[in-house]
Amino acid sequence: MTVASISAEYFPQEPKAPVVASATHEKSKEAIAKLDKNFDARGAYFVADYAKSTGNYIADVDGNYYLDVYAQIASIPLGYNNPALIEVAKSDKMIRAIVDRPALGNFPGADLNEIVEEILKVAPKGQDKVWSGLSGADANELAFKAVFFWYQAQKRGYKSNFSAEEMESVMHNQAPGSPELAILSFERAFHGRLFASGSTTCSKPIHKLDLPAFKWPKAEFPSYKYPLEENVEVNKKEDERCLKIVEELFTTWKVPIAGVLVEPIQSEGGDNHASAEFFQGLRDVTLKHGALLIMDEVQTGVGATGVMWAHERFNLQPPPDLVTFSKKFQSAGYFFHDPEIVPNFAYRQFNTWCGDPARMILAGGIGKEILKHDLVSRAATVGDYLYKKLEALQKKFPTYLRDLRGKDRATFIAWSLENAEARNKFLSDMKTVGVNIGGCAEDSVRLRPTLVFEEKHADILVEAIEKVLSGY
Amino acid sequence: MTVASISAEYFPQEPKAPVVASATHEKSKEAIAKLDKNFDARGAYFVADYAKSTGNYIADVDGNYYLDVYAQIASIPLGYNNPALIEVAKSDKMIRAIVDRPALGNFPGADLNEIVEEILKVAPKGQDKVWSGLSGADANELAFKAVFFWYQAQKRGYKSNFSAEEMESVMHNQAPGSPELAILSFERAFHGRLFASGSTTCSKPIHKLDLPAFKWPKAEFPSYKYPLEENVEVNKKEDERCLKIVEELFTTWKVPIAGVLVEPIQSEGGDNHASAEFFQGLRDVTLKHGALLIMDEVQTGVGATGVMWAHERFNLQPPPDLVTFSKKFQSAGYFFHDPEIVPNFAYRQFNTWCGDPARMILAGGIGKEILKHDLVSRAATVGDYLYKKLEALQKKFPTYLRDLRGKDRATFIAWSLENAEARNKFLSDMKTVGVNIGGCAEDSVRLRPTLVFEEKHADILVEAIEKVLSGY
Repeated sequence: MTVASISAEYFPQEPKAPVVASATHEKSKEAIAKLDKNFDARGAYFVADYAKSTGNYIADVDGNYYLDVYAQIASIPLGYNNPALIEVAKSDKMIRAIVDRPALGNFPGADLNEIVEEILKVAPKGQDKVWSGLSGADANELAFKAVFFWYQAQKRGYKSNFSAEEMESVMHNQAPGSPELAILSFERAFHGRLFASGSTTCSKPIHKLDLPAFKWPKAEFPSYKYPLEENVEVNKKEDERCLKIVEELFTTWKVPIAGVLVEPIQSEGGDNHASAEFFQGLRDVTLKHGALLIMDEVQTGVGATGVMWAHERFNLQPPPDLVTFSKKFQSAGYFFHDPEIVPNFAYRQFNTWCGDPARMILAGGIGKEILKHDLVSRAATVGDYLYKKLEALQKKFPTYLRDLRGKDRATFIAWSLENAEARNKFLSDMKTVGVNIGGCAEDSVRLRPTLVFEEKHADILVEAIEKVLSGY
Repeated sequence: MTVASISAEYFPQEPKAPVVASATHEKSKEAIAKLDKNFDARGAYFVADYAKSTGNYIADVDGNYYLDVYAQIASIPLGYNNPALIEVAKSDKMIRAIVDRPALGNFPGADLNEIVEEILKVAPKGQDKVWSGLSGADANELAFKAVFFWYQAQKRGYKSNFSAEEMESVMHNQAPGSPELAILSFERAFHGRLFASGSTTCSKPIHKLDLPAFKWPKAEFPSYKYPLEENVEVNKKEDERCLKIVEELFTTWKVPIAGVLVEPIQSEGGDNHASAEFFQGLRDVTLKHGALLIMDEVQTGVGATGVMWAHERFNLQPPPDLVTFSKKFQSAGYFFHDPEIVPNFAYRQFNTWCGDPARMILAGGIGKEILKHDLVSRAATVGDYLYKKLEALQKKFPTYLRDLRGKDRATFIAWSLENAEARNKFLSDMKTVGVNIGGCAEDSVRLRPTLVFEEKHADILVEAIEKVLSGY
């Protein structure tokens, strides 16, 4: 199948190859030191020149042009300075959303329904409602609120009022008004870094240290043996073992579990995959115990894995109760389908802004381009192409390409190195050959390019990896 | 003193008076019903037409033009469709920030330092650093994180590493890695509706019911007798009583209190004021007990009370450790001055986006206009003018204008009615005479106009109030 290059159509000026103009990053270093006096900039790799960045290439202030397969921690959907999104950004609707930012819950604009409907056009199958927030962590915490409202409403009757004791105790942060309830998540999960989302996150200590946390349970997420084709039975047993732990936590945990929160692929925690059967089992456990299921699609959503939403591959019946999104949608919130997930009274799921229509308009624009150019299928095709090349490279450098993961998951590909030191050196060395690439877990590399990453970019990436590894 | 009308300069098309074209809101009702199928719209008062809104007037889809003294829950700074902000929204810098949203902590753009410096130009006195977030609740939770990081770093030494026990226990949400620490806030406070911010909020049960909470302490906030001039001694005793409660909580609360969080004027909770002496006492208590002081300026900040930041009137020495902002800045985050409030290691105060440069650029633009047109002094002048008129009206309608508050606090004015029912009827009746106005606490009215609200608008507002009350 030959298809026209959409990246060439969008980005006629995209470089043909990375440009490594300066390996010392003098200008970046100077700019970071200056910024750091006003704003903590210790995590900055380099200072980008977004005016010069285009398509799959991020430019920096030292004149380098990196092929970007990290894409702002998996969040640039359609390449830098995408002309279709620039049109959206210049629209009257966007300008109004910026300068007249509404309190959406009280004073929605005449165009809000249209904005919401654009977003719903790319909603996961089975989801027909949406609520909006501001980041992945925020989306997850809004989803937790929805879960707890629903759980308590089920107990007292959807339209029943609060008791006097609840009204009184809640003002002292005490039960029954502030009940002891939990969200179950998984070891190695990442769901954000605020206090409740942070209590469900479990990938690295640095995200959590020194912060008070809710004492919520963690189950084990399957740890598969690779390659998957050769380890079907042992991985099936692993699913069963992990589901049993979830089931046990429901009956043994000291406070009721109101919801289960899970990523379709654990991303920050190491690109840990699990089977459709595992997720189906999870759906069953939540139904059995009267809990809701939240799929965290913050990193996996919006086409990244070769389907619009990664959990759609699992064929869950009924669909997950809430699906959270952010990153590639450049907006945040959750999808849902059950009308009873709308809280029983107004002003419960509420705050001043209730989202940002500017970012919601952009999400609609992103969805429209994805559908128009069939970018999800394209991502799947280029992912297969890339995966095969990496498999070939793995044979040559098995030590540096361990546990290659993400077959048939578009460009959502990862692998491991021997340890953190080797991984960090690899990530750093890749910059010297003009590739901006990111890690996950302690020892893994994750590919998170845009949806306009094509075969020609995959060739450059694989060549760069080979060049770096050949020097080891 | 005569000054040119800045609202006339910004908004030549601003209506001369409200237009009440339809009291039945048929089109709004229809649009709300349609939206509600996709997006919870039960809190919507009407559907706004932002294209037609201008200056201090918000238009709706039924052809009404309301004088808006609520301004999107206290958050529109410079009027609807402000031409200076439209210019900012159309700038190349803004368009890039929208379409190339960076992960600011890893890949800051070349213009980030300039964007940050614009914000710091209007920082509270004594604050020279900033960190960015996405909403008021988010800003407060980021500030809590900074407080907890600082508190634990003080105990173990700023540059000391974590213990093996901390690294292990934190992954199970257990102490010592997830320590038991508290933020002290006040009864009737509002600091947001996420889980940690929600645990510090204490104004209404509806914000908190059914949500697990951290068991953090609440002190009493002074309840003054009005008018203040006639109740100096009794209010002074009230300060002392409340400070004593704070002091006692520090010594008796079951877990250490790492920070105190307070609004300069409790806004959502009823526009409750307290004296400079009270806040100075609070500063002293935090210093004595080794805790940090967070001033929540989400609603009071950015000129709303006749100074840029409301706490600047309190002359706190040293200045508050963290000052959170959002709303009128259309952006969010916290200011600080102590370099040790930068976490001891990178990647602790971190997330994917670390704020939104589009909204940060707008904040800089807002600050620039405020300084250029001296809008804070103007707000103070028009506030005095309005307050005197309301005092006169109070004599005529004492039952409906109880405990008038906000003298010398610009247009940050409030009063109470007999009860919730009377207050709600008043808010609703004001719409029939073309004024969009909001409440606070159960029985109070709060004025939160923009910074381009002038004497001519005050006249219309007072006339409308008089008209409504005359009918009672």
